[in-house]
Parts: sequence; C-alpha cells; structure tokens
Amino acid sequence: MLQITPLNPESETSFYRQLYLQIKELIASGQLPTGGRLPATRELAGQLGLNRTTVSAAYELLETEGLISGHVGRGSFVAGSPKRESGVAWREILEASAPISPAAPSSTPVAGFSSSRPSELLFPLEEFRETCAEVISSPDAQTILQLGSPAGYPPLRRYLLELARAEGIARDSDDILITSGCQQAFDLVQRTLVRKGETVLLEDPVYLGQKNAFERGGARLAGVPMGANGLDLESLERITRRERPRLLTVTSNFQNPTGTTLPLASRKALLGITQAAGVIVIENDIYGGLTYEGDPIPTIKRLDETGDVVLLRSFSKLAFPGLRVGWVIGPRALIEKLTEAKLWSDLHTDQLSQAVLLRFAESGRLAKHRQKMLEAGRERLHAALSACRQYLPAQAGFTRPRGGMSLWVTLPAPLDAGELLPRAERAGVTYLPGRYFAVSHSQSNSLRISFAGMAPDRIREGIAILGRIFTEELERVRVHSPLTETPAMV
Amino acid sequence: MLQITPLNPESETSFYRQLYLQIKELIASGQLPTGGRLPATRELAGQLGLNRTTVSAAYELLETEGLISGHVGRGSFVAGSPKRESGVAWREILEASAPISPAAPSSTPVAGFSSSRPSELLFPLEEFRETCAEVISSPDAQTILQLGSPAGYPPLRRYLLELARAEGIARDSDDILITSGCQQAFDLVQRTLVRKGETVLLEDPVYLGQKNAFERGGARLAGVPMGANGLDLESLERITRRERPRLLTVTSNFQNPTGTTLPLASRKALLGITQAAGVIVIENDIYGGLTYEGDPIPTIKRLDETGDVVLLRSFSKLAFPGLRVGWVIGPRALIEKLTEAKLWSDLHTDQLSQAVLLRFAESGRLAKHRQKMLEAGRERLHAALSACRQYLPAQAGFTRPRGGMSLWVTLPAPLDAGELLPRAERAGVTYLPGRYFAVSHSQSNSLRISFAGMAPDRIREGIAILGRIFTEELERVRVHSPLTETPAMV
Repeated sequence: MLQITPLNPESETSFYRQLYLQIKELIASGQLPTGGRLPATRELAGQLGLNRTTVSAAYELLETEGLISGHVGRGSFVAGSPKRESGVAWREILEASAPISPAAPSSTPVAGFSSSRPSELLFPLEEFRETCAEVISSPDAQTILQLGSPAGYPPLRRYLLELARAEGIARDSDDILITSGCQQAFDLVQRTLVRKGETVLLEDPVYLGQKNAFERGGARLAGVPMGANGLDLESLERITRRERPRLLTVTSNFQNPTGTTLPLASRKALLGITQAAGVIVIENDIYGGLTYEGDPIPTIKRLDETGDVVLLRSFSKLAFPGLRVGWVIGPRALIEKLTEAKLWSDLHTDQLSQAVLLRFAESGRLAKHRQKMLEAGRERLHAALSACRQYLPAQAGFTRPRGGMSLWVTLPAPLDAGELLPRAERAGVTYLPGRYFAVSHSQSNSLRISFAGMAPDRIREGIAILGRIFTEELERVRVHSPLTETPAMV
Repeated sequence: MLQITPLNPESETSFYRQLYLQIKELIASGQLPTGGRLPATRELAGQLGLNRTTVSAAYELLETEGLISGHVGRGSFVAGSPKRESGVAWREILEASAPISPAAPSSTPVAGFSSSRPSELLFPLEEFRETCAEVISSPDAQTILQLGSPAGYPPLRRYLLELARAEGIARDSDDILITSGCQQAFDLVQRTLVRKGETVLLEDPVYLGQKNAFERGGARLAGVPMGANGLDLESLERITRRERPRLLTVTSNFQNPTGTTLPLASRKALLGITQAAGVIVIENDIYGGLTYEGDPIPTIKRLDETGDVVLLRSFSKLAFPGLRVGWVIGPRALIEKLTEAKLWSDLHTDQLSQAVLLRFAESGRLAKHRQKMLEAGRERLHAALSACRQYLPAQAGFTRPRGGMSLWVTLPAPLDAGELLPRAERAGVTYLPGRYFAVSHSQSNSLRISFAGMAPDRIREGIAILGRIFTEELERVRVHSPLTETPAMV
C-alpha cells in the first residue's frame, strides 16, 4: 500500500497537487522503485477518501513529467526518478512548503476584482513624462544617480516631514524613513520590533502581505475581528489582555480587504486600550488619500498624545504602484533602528523614483491627479455598491466603504467563496476568496471585491455574474438540503 | 561608587560615548537621582582604567544635554532626567546596541577613500537623459507604472537571462530574480537558505553589508582568510570540515575590500571542496565587469557542472548606484523561493529603474559607458598602486588588484589603522579601517583604499598624506618602543 500522509485541506495547494508532490517524493527517494506498480486510481481514491478525478489528475501530471507510465488494463508503473539537477540537497533545504500567495490571476474577460490597484488607464502619462523630463534635466540628476542615503532622498524626506508637521501628525520627536513601498515598512517593523514568538495583533481579515511579513519573521499572529466599523474594540481589549502583544497593526481608513473605516471615537478608544497595555500601534494609512465621501477623520497618529504611534503611508495607491516608494513616520529612536535595518536590507530606496515622485507632488500634479482619482473612485464605488444591492442574494452581506479600493462580501452558509471561484472564473470574473485574508477566524464564506481598477459598467457586469452564481448555488444547496431528510424528533 | 559595566573595546562606539550612554541610563532609571554627585573625572578614570580625557568628554556631552552640571571645585551633579518622549518603552524594546555601520564620512578636502562607488563625474548624463526619454515615451510606460511582478520586469529578466545563457553561465535549469540591488540579494539568500544558528562562511575580510545581512538573520559567521590570490583554499577546506557550513559567499573578481581575484585553478578547487561537502556557493560578481588589465576569468558559476552555484550581479558598480537594480541567477527551485521572500519583503523592484537600465543596456549605451569606466579605472588603479609603492612605509603591504574599486593596505605592527584614522581625517583624507571588514580575524592593522571614485592626482595626494602619517607613527612607536626597556634575560 502506498504510504501517503493525509492531505491537508487547509493548504493553498490543491489536493491533486499535494498527492502529486508526495508520490514524486516517494519516487525520488526510491521508496517507489522504477518498475513498481501504482495502485489503480479508484483504489487509491478509496484509501484516501478522495474523488477519483483528483487521483487521476495527480497521475496525469506524473505521466506528463515522465515519472510514471500507464498501460490500459494493467495500471500505472514508475518509469524513472525525477532528475536531480544538482548535488546540493535543494529539496530538503527549501522544503516542499506551498507558497501562501494567490495563484496568478487567470484571464478576466469580464471583470478582475482580485487586485487592489489603480487602473493604469487613469495614469496621468503626460504629467508623468513632464515630471521625469524636469527631474533628469535638473542639476540634481547627478546626485540622484549616485549612491544615496538609507533614510531616503533628503529633499523627499524634508518635503514629506514638513507636510506631516503641517497636518499635525509629526511632532518634533518624530522622524521619517523612506521605504521601498509599504510592504517593506511592514517587513522592517517586523525585523526591528518583533522577536520570534512574540505576538502581533492583526485585523481579521487583513491584507495577506501584512500577515506574511510578520509570520515569516516568526511572530505569533492573533486576529482581532472586524465589524462594519472596523476593528471590534471589545475584542481588541479582551485579546490584548489575554495575548500581551508587542504591537497592533491597524488600517484606520478603508481597510484592506473590508473597506471599513474606524470612527473617531473608536480611534480614541483604541489609543486608550493600547496605551494602557504598552502596545505599539502601527497605523497603515495607504488608503486615507482616497476618501470619496464625507470628511476625512484624523489619523490615530494625529490623535495620539504620547508620540508613540507609527504611521505608514505610500504613493502607490494614489499614483504609480510600479514606483516603489512609501514612508514611515514615528519616534526618532525607532526610525533610527528601522533605517539601520533598511541599510542591510537593500541599502536605500531607488532614488530616481523618489525624485520623480517628489517633483510630481511638489509641482501640484499629484493633487490634480488625486482629484481625478477621487471622481473616478466615487463612480466606481457607487457602481459596486448599487450592483451588490441589486444582484447579490438577499442573504448576502456586504460592507459600505466611503473610499479606498475594496469591499467585503459575506455569503450565507453553507456557501464557500473559495469553492465557487472556479465557476466565477469560467464566467470571466475573478476575486480573492476570504481564506487569503484570514488570521485567526475562518473567512471561507467571504470574498474581497476590489472595484477601483475597473470602469463602472464592467463592475456592474461582473457583480451581476457573481450574483447569479451565488444565487444559483444557494438554490442548489437548498434543494439538496439534508434538512428535508431529518427524521421526526422523538 | 558609580555602577559602570566594563566598556567594550570591540564596540564601534567610542569609549567616551559608551560611558555617556551608561551614565545617561543610570540617570534615566533613577539610580543616579537628581542632585546626586558624580565622581571626579580623575577618580572615575582610575576606577575604569580609562584616560581622564575620555571621562571628561562623556561628562561634557552629559552637560551639553542638561543632564549634569559642573561646579568648579565641587564636582558634577545630576541636573535632571532625560526626557521620556513616550509611554511605550522604546529604550528597552530597541536596546542600546550600537549600530555597526561606519560613521557618516567627514568632509574630505583632499581624498575620500572610504566609499566603493563610481565617481558621479563619470556618469553619462546625456545618455541617461536620452534613455529615460525613450522609456517614458514608449508604449510600455503604462505597464512600467503599474504594479509589477516580484520576479522582476519581464523584458529585463528575459534580456539578462539570454545574456547569461550566451555567456554560458545560465543553464536550462536556472532562472533569474531581479533584486533591489545586490544587498537585497544577500538578504533574501539569508532569509531563504540560512536558519538561525547555521554557519555561513565569509571571506575574511569581507564587505560589511554581507556580514551584516547574515549576522542580522542569526547566522553563525566563520571567516576564511584571504591571501594575495583571494580565498585561502587550505583554510577553506579545513574550516568547511570543521564548521559544516550551509553556504559560502565568494567574490571571485576584485573582492571588496581586498581587491584580490581568485585564479582559475582555485575556482575549480573551490568547486571541488564545496561540492564534496554539499555547501552552497553564492558567487558575488558585482565587480567582474570592471576588469582593467588581463583577460576576465570564467566565473565559478560557469565552471560549475552541477548547476548549484548561485550568481549575483548588479548594475550599481558600472552604471548608476542610485538606481537599485541587481539580479540573482540560480537553480529554478531556489529562485522560486527567493521570489516568494522578495514578494513579502517589498513586492517587487522599482520598475522605472528596471526599464531605464534595460534600455540603457539594450541600446548599447551601457557597453560604451563601460569602455569609459574601464579607461578611467585603469588610470586610477595605476595612480593608486604607484602612490602606494612610492609613499607607504616599506614595511607596509598592499594588494595589486587588476580591476574593481579598492585595494587593501596592511600596516606593520603595532600600527592600528582605526587609531590613525582621526589623524588622516584632520589632514583631509578618509578611509575605512580594517575592523569594519573583520569576520573571525582582527584586521586592526589594515585599511581599505577605495580608489575608483577619484581623479588620479587626488589619489596620489591622498596616499602621500597617508604615507607620511603612517611613517611618522612608525618612527614614533620605534622611539618609544618598550623593547629598549626590557630587562636583561636572567
């Protein structure tokens, strides 16, 4: 009998691929010798409690790679060992862990709701070209091309710090570090502040990149449930008491993936809870510039009177994501340490992009572009919300963001957003299922709709398709519901 | 009596600053209360075995900060506590560890030998401007500004991989990852391949950034001594047997800091040793493009028949260091893992710079610029070597690089390059003392001369000044040599 360890239903790797990897390893290690016979697909499916097509798919992949060969009526046999490409034991060293990143997006003929990024059709190409031309013809060009400072391009640091001071979010005791986008800011925070095994509180659900930055650094993650108004504060207080975390990350405006915003009173309460417990607050404000409706609420950093809150911002959501420039504002002692970590991570952030974005902002072009982005975002948000109201099953819930790039749909039980994704993809629509954003709580019945990258008509069309699929599935499971077969109570 | 823990002579932090930090901490913690009396400088110097001026310097700094005040004839008293800026215990969390990065370079009126970077005066600004203009006016501009791939800008990846295949250094089983410069490549290698406590072999001396990337990741470092022809292979074999390391990093051409190059036979022998022991070889070839004399030697990656060697390269030393683009070529399974680590480190490398450097290379401008760099480099190298011959004391040794950016000077005992640096700086010359590059062996009598960033006459003038200082010091220590006071043997 084939020695297959139970497949992991929590893994991002599909069953057939997990099976394929295990059999490949058995062949590579010689436990399945060349010429050895594999069990029939029906037999192995029975043994493992799998669908027979799953086993067939694994066998097909092995056959494609020339590792097994099938003979009608006789079964499948091991044809040879996987080629060892080298003397270094790469397999052992690298382990067979499945990456926890979403698969590459399929082609999306109708609507791709899976990426939170601005539409490239809105990029102000002419203004970008003018900006570049100004930067490279300026006398600073030589300096920009030379090795720079780990803390960032000095004129950009000064510009952003002055802006932050004017806004009341940077104090004299604060300083600034330019990072290669916000993702790096999380990575540096993890490296500098979190020791292996220490606990980090994250919003639950939360953006995958945050989860991974801390998890890879060896932190224990604890999720704080999100409600319609962001972080649930009662849970925060309880979990803080129980977990004694080192830090909390919070996206106060238009959180990714839920799109929710923390109200003013909750921001103040959050400060009370974290300050009492000595928990560092990392406020991620990369969506704050994208307020489509209502007045912006002061950041937690601004409300904080201790000067301890650390604020992350970035140009990527507003301007050009391909240019990797973000920044961190926080207490000087922390910024010094983050800068040191930055130095040994990548020396410094690319200076051409820093200089171009500085010029783009200073010249007023960023503010003008932002107005365009706000108009487009408002339209898209309205299209998404009205389509959700119109097309989603009545039992589905969805958040009502007032800015940002995404909203969060919760399907009625027993629907599973991950299981339904292939059907949506076949119909030309993609999204990211809730499991990519889960921290401590399963999010299997939820999904993220990233609406900001598409025109309103495609948003409507895409959500209409999703609505149809979810409604059909809901009717199908009702028809087959075991409830109708429940015996009479006795 | 003041509770001062022994000062650390190995620390990069000067004695007076270490003392200052300790006293400041005693005041902050209340162990030295406001109004409390500090010992007289003479007394504390005696207690700690320090020079009295060291203690005075620490007291002065404390006084400048308003923490103590001095009264002639009565001594110094604690005037107040350092301001606590916040409720989070930043001090404890961040520790008082001294950064192991060199101090900011002082102004260098004569010659700055401390940074291995090309001179900005040689930057081909016009060609760079033309390149940028072409990139931003091309139809790819929209794609470049949009969120990109963690593996790198696809046209650049293809271009570099094809070039590497043509050169015979990439096989079908290899793949490529674009990194934010070579420093990030080391960081990703450390994160992916080295578990905490595992041993990494480094050249000794080696570039500080390599040492720090691995040390911060928790690796044990072991240094393999460098000779006039690079890595000492007998030591490598012995240390490999003893340490059973995970990997070895080696800079085969014009190593930083020594400037030495590993001969062909040694490259082959190195492959034999590492393959037998299953040690991964990370070949850093960022200086290989800067061969001023003789024929280039095939990289270790090219000589390797297993396909296991991992090659790092970069545009930074040849073109524009301010644009952070390097790359890694290695077995596909490793590149996949590095790409995943890259994704959670900073999503992807800046795309504007990737596209600009691709165009700069593809258009033939990089090759043309390289010729100019080679001519300038040859002149500078000759100026440096002839000045070393002419001005350094006869007992000093120095390496004879045939390319790259730096050479290595070893002073006769008991001269200490770190102690002599302030004198050199006062005379308008800077360099990095050997201790910044030390791994397992003290390099206190050595220093790195980075010659590539300066015109020949400044190189000569600078080395002449160093020669004078070293010669004077050598005469001074001879006059005061304790040898003359040695009692007769009995």
